Amino acid sequence: MERITATYYIETPLDLEKSAQVLAGEQSSGTFIAVPGETEALKRRFAARVESISALDTADGPAIPGVIASGGKYQRAMITVSWSIENFGYNLPVLISTLQGNLYELTQFTGLKLMDLKLPPSYGAQFTGPKFGIDGCRKLTGVYNRPLIGTIIKPSIGMSPDQTAELVHTLATAGIDFIKDDELLGSSANSPFDKRVDAVMEVINAHADRSGKKVMYAFNISDEMDQMQRNYEKVLKSGGTSVMISLNSVGLAGVKKIGDIGELAIHGHRNGWGMLNRHPLLGIEFPAYQQLWRLAGVDQIHVNGIQNKFWESDDSVVKSIESCLQPLLGGFSVLPVVSSGQWGGQAPETYRRTKTVDLLYMAGGGIMAHPDGPAGGVVALQQAWQGAVDGLSVAEIAAKYPEFGRSVSVFGKK
Amino acid sequence: MERITATYYIETPLDLEKSAQVLAGEQSSGTFIAVPGETEALKRRFAARVESISALDTADGPAIPGVIASGGKYQRAMITVSWSIENFGYNLPVLISTLQGNLYELTQFTGLKLMDLKLPPSYGAQFTGPKFGIDGCRKLTGVYNRPLIGTIIKPSIGMSPDQTAELVHTLATAGIDFIKDDELLGSSANSPFDKRVDAVMEVINAHADRSGKKVMYAFNISDEMDQMQRNYEKVLKSGGTSVMISLNSVGLAGVKKIGDIGELAIHGHRNGWGMLNRHPLLGIEFPAYQQLWRLAGVDQIHVNGIQNKFWESDDSVVKSIESCLQPLLGGFSVLPVVSSGQWGGQAPETYRRTKTVDLLYMAGGGIMAHPDGPAGGVVALQQAWQGAVDGLSVAEIAAKYPEFGRSVSVFGKK
Repeated sequence: MERITATYYIETPLDLEKSAQVLAGEQSSGTFIAVPGETEALKRRFAARVESISALDTADGPAIPGVIASGGKYQRAMITVSWSIENFGYNLPVLISTLQGNLYELTQFTGLKLMDLKLPPSYGAQFTGPKFGIDGCRKLTGVYNRPLIGTIIKPSIGMSPDQTAELVHTLATAGIDFIKDDELLGSSANSPFDKRVDAVMEVINAHADRSGKKVMYAFNISDEMDQMQRNYEKVLKSGGTSVMISLNSVGLAGVKKIGDIGELAIHGHRNGWGMLNRHPLLGIEFPAYQQLWRLAGVDQIHVNGIQNKFWESDDSVVKSIESCLQPLLGGFSVLPVVSSGQWGGQAPETYRRTKTVDLLYMAGGGIMAHPDGPAGGVVALQQAWQGAVDGLSVAEIAAKYPEFGRSVSVFGKK
Repeated sequence: MERITATYYIETPLDLEKSAQVLAGEQSSGTFIAVPGETEALKRRFAARVESISALDTADGPAIPGVIASGGKYQRAMITVSWSIENFGYNLPVLISTLQGNLYELTQFTGLKLMDLKLPPSYGAQFTGPKFGIDGCRKLTGVYNRPLIGTIIKPSIGMSPDQTAELVHTLATAGIDFIKDDELLGSSANSPFDKRVDAVMEVINAHADRSGKKVMYAFNISDEMDQMQRNYEKVLKSGGTSVMISLNSVGLAGVKKIGDIGELAIHGHRNGWGMLNRHPLLGIEFPAYQQLWRLAGVDQIHVNGIQNKFWESDDSVVKSIESCLQPLLGGFSVLPVVSSGQWGGQAPETYRRTKTVDLLYMAGGGIMAHPDGPAGGVVALQQAWQGAVDGLSVAEIAAKYPEFGRSVSVFGKK
C-alpha cells in the first residue's frame, strides 16, 4: 500500500526515539489511555511509522514554550514519518490534519516544523493539478526565454476602476507582461470588482487587438465561495486570463474548487506566510507548502525575492524557487512569482543562484518610479535579465544598457 | 464610516511609533518608493490608522528572527490599528489578508501577534453566523442546565463502520449526549464516509425512537468542496444533527459555504492551532480567531481544556472559553468545546474559573476506560459537573458519588 512520507525538524527535551513515537501515535491512534478495540492488526495497518531519526545539535533552552520542564539539553533532529494512504485517501484537508493537526500542541516538543513531503505516485493520477503552469502561462502571455515581467497596481487600495485602467494602459503600452491587484483589494467602496474588470479588460483587450499581446491581469477574486465563482466567471467572460487568490485567507477547499474549473491561470498569493514560517522551529517550510497548493491547482505561487524588503534570507528564497521548479509527481508545473522590493538589480544574483528564467518577476516602484517612466522601467527589467543570463554584473549591465543604468541611479542607492 | 479595529502584540528594535506606522502603511498603501496617483485624499480615506500604542517591557534579544540588527533593546507593546470597512466590505478572506497578510514578514518587527478584533455593528446584519449556537445545540440534544457530555471515537482511525456503530450503541446506551469522529478520519479504506453514516445513524435513530434522546454525532465531513457538500447532504438525509469540519485544513471560504447551509450544527475543530498560536509573539490569539469562525457560521469550537495533555496553560484556556461566551455583534452564540485529557477531575476547576455550564465537555479514555464501563464514565462526568456547580472539590465529589469516585481511582493518579 502506498505511503506518504513527511519530514519534520523537531526539538525535544526528552528521549528522541520516544518523542518521535508520540508524534506518530498522536497522528494515527492516540489517546491518553488504552481503549478496547485497539487491536494490533488495526494498529499495524493504520499506524503512522517513524522511518528515520537524524540527531542534530542541542540547545540550552527551548525554541518555543512547552510545559515539560527540563534541566538538560534540548535535542534537535530531523525525523521522517510515514502514513498509509488508506488513512485519508485523496482527501487533502484530512491529509493536512494528519500531517500538521494537533502535533504542534504536543508537550514532548519545544519545536516542530514540517519541512518536506513525499507524495505517492497515485496522487499524480488522482489530481489534475495546475492547468497552465509554466508553459501555459508563457503561452497565454507570449513570453519565451526570459522571465515574465510583472507589476502590482499601487497604491494597493483607493484607486477607482478608471484610474486603475489608466495605469493598466500605461503599463500595457510600456510592454508589461503581467499585472495584478494587490491582496488588500477585492471589491472596495470605490473599486467594485465587476467595474474594475470591465474597465481594465477594455484596455487590455484593445491593447491586444492593436498589438497582438494580451497582458495577463490577475484579478483578486478572493472572497466567499459563491462570490469567488461569480468573480471568476466575470473575468472569464471579459476575456481575462488569470485570477489571483490569497491562498491562506481563502483556504485549501476554496482554492481547489476554483483551481478545478481550469479556464484561467491561478495566481497564488501566499500572504500570511510569515505566520506559518518565520520561526525556525514552528510551522511549515515552503518545499512542503508548495506541494499542497500545486495539488490544489495553483499555476503561479509567490516565493518572495532575492534581497527582498522582508525578513527572509536569500538562501530561503532560493530554496523556494528550486522547490517550485522540481517536478512534482512527474509534472504539476508551477511558475515561481518573485516579488518584494525587486527592481532588476537582483536579476544577476537571482539567475546566478537559480539558473532559471522560468519566473514571474514582479517589480512595483521599480517600474512605476523609473526616471524614464514605466516604459523605461519595463525595458530596464528586460535588460537586467538579459544581462543576468549573459553573466554580467549589475555594474556591467548598467554600463551596457542606458535604461537599466538609470534604474541603478535611482534604486541602486537604497 | 465604520471601522474595524485590531489589537497586536508587537516587538521591535526600532522606534515604536514609526514601526506602528509601517504596519499601517504596509496593510493599506505600502510600496518601497512613492508612486504617482497616491494622493492625500485617497490616503486619508483608505489608510489604516494607528489608534493607540502602549509600551510594555523590553527584551535583550529578538523573539523571532529578523534581519534588522540591533545593539539595543527590543521594545514590546500593544498597539491598535483600524481600517475603514470601505477597504474590504464584508469579504472575510480580504479582511484576513488585511489584518494578517504580509505584516508578519516585516523586518521592523521581531514579534507580532494578532490579539483581538472589534467588528463594526453592520457585520451583525450582514452575516448570519452560527445557526444553532448554545441554545440550538441544547435543543438538538435535549440537554439543559449542565454541560453536554461528549466523546471521540477512538482509536482515531482503523475501525470499521460496524465497529464504530457498536461503540456508538454502547455510548448511546450509556447516556452520552455527543460523539464525534476523530479529525484524522474522513473516509478511510475501511470506513467509507457514507457507510459509516449509515451504520452510525441506524443506531442513533433507533436509540432516539426508543428513548426520545437523539445523540448528536459530528461526522467529519472535511474534504474538498463538492465532497463536503455531498457528505453534508448524506448526514442530513440520514437524520443526523451535526457535522465536523477541521477549520484550518479546509479554510474559511469552504467552512462558510457549509455553515451557510444552516441545517446542521457545525462542530469546528481547530487542529493545526498550535502552529498559529504556540509562540507568544507570532500568529494569532483565540479571541481574534474565534470571531472569524463565528462569522463563518461555526456553532461549536474547540478551546482545549483545563489541565490538558497539550502545552497550553489553564489561563489561556479560560481566556478562550470566556471569549466564546462573550456575545459577538449582539449574538453569534458559539458553544465552547472542552477537550484533551479531560475525565471529570477538571470540572471543579473549570467551573470555578469560568462559572459556566455552557460547554461541550469531551472525554475520551475518561469515559471508555472507566472501571464500570462507558455508562459509569458518562455518569461520573455528570456527577463531576453537578459537584462542580455545587462548589465541591474533587475529593468531595468522589466521596459523594461512587462512579466519580472510581474515576478518581483510575484517572486521578496521572
